[in-house]
Amino acid sequence: MSKVIDFQTDPSKYRHWRVEYDGEVANLFMDVDEKGGLFDGYELKLNSYDLGVDIELADVVQRMRFEHPEVKVVVMQSAKDKVFCAGANIRMLGGASHAHKVNFCKFTNETRNTFEAAEADSGQKYVAAVKGACAGGGYELALACNHIMLTNDSSSSVALPEVPLLAVLPGTGGLTRVTDKRKVRRDLADVFCSIEEGVKGQRAADWKLVDEVIPNSKFDETVQQRAREFAAASSKPSDLTGIQLTPLQRSFDDDGSVTYSTVEVELDRDNGRAFITVKGPEEGAPANADALQAQGDQAWILRAARELDDAILHLRLNERELGLIVLRTQGDPERVLEHEKLLLDNADHWLANEVLKYWKRVLKRVDMTSRSLVALVEHGSCFAGPLAELLWAVDRSYMMLEEFEGDNRPLATVSLSASNFGTYPMGNDLSRLATRFLGDPDAVEGLKDRIGDAIEADEAEELGLVTYAFDDIDWEDEVRIFMEERASFSPDAMTGMEANLRFAGPETMETRIFGRLTAWQNWIFQRPNAVGESGALQRYGTGIRGEYNMERV
Amino acid sequence: MSKVIDFQTDPSKYRHWRVEYDGEVANLFMDVDEKGGLFDGYELKLNSYDLGVDIELADVVQRMRFEHPEVKVVVMQSAKDKVFCAGANIRMLGGASHAHKVNFCKFTNETRNTFEAAEADSGQKYVAAVKGACAGGGYELALACNHIMLTNDSSSSVALPEVPLLAVLPGTGGLTRVTDKRKVRRDLADVFCSIEEGVKGQRAADWKLVDEVIPNSKFDETVQQRAREFAAASSKPSDLTGIQLTPLQRSFDDDGSVTYSTVEVELDRDNGRAFITVKGPEEGAPANADALQAQGDQAWILRAARELDDAILHLRLNERELGLIVLRTQGDPERVLEHEKLLLDNADHWLANEVLKYWKRVLKRVDMTSRSLVALVEHGSCFAGPLAELLWAVDRSYMMLEEFEGDNRPLATVSLSASNFGTYPMGNDLSRLATRFLGDPDAVEGLKDRIGDAIEADEAEELGLVTYAFDDIDWEDEVRIFMEERASFSPDAMTGMEANLRFAGPETMETRIFGRLTAWQNWIFQRPNAVGESGALQRYGTGIRGEYNMERV
Repeated sequence: MSKVIDFQTDPSKYRHWRVEYDGEVANLFMDVDEKGGLFDGYELKLNSYDLGVDIELADVVQRMRFEHPEVKVVVMQSAKDKVFCAGANIRMLGGASHAHKVNFCKFTNETRNTFEAAEADSGQKYVAAVKGACAGGGYELALACNHIMLTNDSSSSVALPEVPLLAVLPGTGGLTRVTDKRKVRRDLADVFCSIEEGVKGQRAADWKLVDEVIPNSKFDETVQQRAREFAAASSKPSDLTGIQLTPLQRSFDDDGSVTYSTVEVELDRDNGRAFITVKGPEEGAPANADALQAQGDQAWILRAARELDDAILHLRLNERELGLIVLRTQGDPERVLEHEKLLLDNADHWLANEVLKYWKRVLKRVDMTSRSLVALVEHGSCFAGPLAELLWAVDRSYMMLEEFEGDNRPLATVSLSASNFGTYPMGNDLSRLATRFLGDPDAVEGLKDRIGDAIEADEAEELGLVTYAFDDIDWEDEVRIFMEERASFSPDAMTGMEANLRFAGPETMETRIFGRLTAWQNWIFQRPNAVGESGALQRYGTGIRGEYNMERV
Repeated sequence: MSKVIDFQTDPSKYRHWRVEYDGEVANLFMDVDEKGGLFDGYELKLNSYDLGVDIELADVVQRMRFEHPEVKVVVMQSAKDKVFCAGANIRMLGGASHAHKVNFCKFTNETRNTFEAAEADSGQKYVAAVKGACAGGGYELALACNHIMLTNDSSSSVALPEVPLLAVLPGTGGLTRVTDKRKVRRDLADVFCSIEEGVKGQRAADWKLVDEVIPNSKFDETVQQRAREFAAASSKPSDLTGIQLTPLQRSFDDDGSVTYSTVEVELDRDNGRAFITVKGPEEGAPANADALQAQGDQAWILRAARELDDAILHLRLNERELGLIVLRTQGDPERVLEHEKLLLDNADHWLANEVLKYWKRVLKRVDMTSRSLVALVEHGSCFAGPLAELLWAVDRSYMMLEEFEGDNRPLATVSLSASNFGTYPMGNDLSRLATRFLGDPDAVEGLKDRIGDAIEADEAEELGLVTYAFDDIDWEDEVRIFMEERASFSPDAMTGMEANLRFAGPETMETRIFGRLTAWQNWIFQRPNAVGESGALQRYGTGIRGEYNMERV
């Protein structure tokens, strides 16, 4: 699996999904093309999915918010007979490397979370209309919807058969959503997760696995009626007109570097590093929300979010030997604040809201990226507003102190805005500043007085906004030594360390999915009982059960 | 590593620890015997530890609470020059099986947690007086203390060098306590965890890694002075007299079964099962707190806790192929409630409090046991008070419904007491009932009206107190089918599933240590970068660094 995976797509290229728009209600049909796998060696039977299917789904969800703000309810359903979705394709998983499995699960988890974010942030509710078998990742798709309707016939059921059938966990939030979101009693959850064939009919509702069980003859009608009811009850404004998400301006060089309109990605493969530079806006902000809407996806602040998002995904999946990502910015911090201010001042405008919420998701994607992250606050940089968040998303930051010989760029500064105190919360529901200063909440309060100031290096270090400030004499050596040191450490130990240190404080369903559930799944994804020659994942489909070493660990 | 590990010890057998009692202050000296390793093949140099050292430490902490309630402050220190503690022994870890490493870390984590529990539950405060190198598990010992004092000399430092040196994580809560307990800023934590030689002097205090840095010349004096100050400020009553914890009444049979005075452990090795039966009290409860104190460790309710605790630890470490633990009770539920009531009515008596808090710890140990757990509520059983908690600690429960032919024992019942609503919280700080009914808090409120009732099977099932109730016709088949099914699943998948389903709801530092940190550590403990032939753990001490596959996962 070494081909370059592209996270950009659009409806004209979809092979697996179809949307029928009907005013406030969108009907989303899963209709996976068996022959449309991202890699060779497996067929996507029974609406099973691989990363390619999920990339399309992520695109659907994203476009629903930007291109179809008129939609208040999305009904997720299958276009196939007798199967809703059979979950992640097992042959794909069986043939995939450990790293691909782990990154596949991370991306699908991020996509599931966007269903819930769509309702919480934009009033766009996802409803699952389940007919036929809904198993494993299929039920996890439904679990990520905020209302699950199940038809009552002999073949329709919900199931998490991973444990009995495959010796792995439901890896896309299933166990966590069963206990934390649907609050299924734990012993019933234990029974449910042990039953290969799943649970159907009234019992599924009694156990809280679904919200409604509906006679088959009335199912389709009831689903559409419920969708209209939810739409009518929604507080989302009506009659909104979307903007178009046009293809990214992006070019790949032979050496692997990627150039976008606002983002540059340079690679240093010899040393295992990637450099991402985000460029600030060259023009002033749009005059008002109407002007923002007129700019559409060409507005700097939306372009930058889309491009950074794509760059991060590209590095995650396609450049796995680059263990360190160096984040830089260049531009005018005042202009960044100005562009962000337009959004903050118009947060009740649907598009301004969408762009802010998209930045929240992009920044969470950075938090969840399993690479060492460092920010270099160089002269001429624009770590302000949403870009300042990068300073606290990374593991460490280095800032240029005072003038550097031969460097005529403006002195490095950090600029806070009101958004840094809650607009872009982490998965733990705290702002990055609140997480950073968990032991010193007064420091966060004190920083509010500094909103709008251009804070120079000595003070930024003193305030704890950056890790280190170094002058011209020390800068190069200190940064070089850090990068060399990082490259000398085990990437696995880094992954584990960063997964623990980045998420201090409270936990949420989201952090539990990425922290507890994912960590256990990754562990199991290495165990011979799952992935060994006689393991269940390898033997799946052969008719022979996995052989297990019964030792408990 | 196949010899039987005994978790019972007493001061006459200690090889690694020494306590000097001085009224309200106890000085606890770590003085590890290099030749005293639990297994062959390594020497415990530089106060490094293995499971045997930790078993003694757990015994020290336990006896401090029961035998020395007069102690208000425990000062943990080293009896060796120039080293406080070098952490877990690396050669031991390098030679240990994956299962031993994981279980070793679980036990040491449970022991560290008892330091914090001692202050929270009994006003017994642990202070770390750090002189010399305090690295890895050594610093984690200090982190578990609630006050860390560091001497200011050229060789004394605190360090978590696991990541740079060994390519594994600090596995005994270190990362979590650094961020969540000490609230070290995350970028500083990142720096700290990357520095092999650690941090010393004032910087350690500035970064919140220690509470005080003291000139070397005044260190010993200041430590004792601080201990006396803490003792004077303690709200713990003075002049308490402890009870003696005498050796358990325990005998092993040739077939592996274990008989205690109140607990029976039977093994079915062919089918991978262990049966634990707790027997209720034969006599009535002590008349009052004085009578309880007079009975000392022979009081049924303390004996049962000690014996159950030992049985669980024995099965965990010594019987790893028994994947299912079946919990049963036999006895008079009224009597169980009577014995517990004495404690609840005298919760301000030090010994009653200690016994209740010990049950809390034992039940947490059950929660954390990586085996499938089932409770069988048979006729003649006494699932009441602390024993009723077992019903909600297990993954599922089966209850006998109505009369069984030829069975003259009293009908199976479940009896709630006030304790089930908060006396024995889980690691997530909720009662097991609150965790069970996370989606239905009213159900918990409703159950309070049933305190003291002997609830029969049909109603217990209806109320959700047990998973299933089966009558004479179905019982044997249903229980057999469940046990066979469980034995057919991958033990790793069970471990991961149970670790997720058992801990719904909020997270605490404790659940984060066992859930997030431990899961990542277990993952890393399997990675070739750590444990492969060229991995860091294997190469440690050879002078050659580990070789890493740099792919990020």
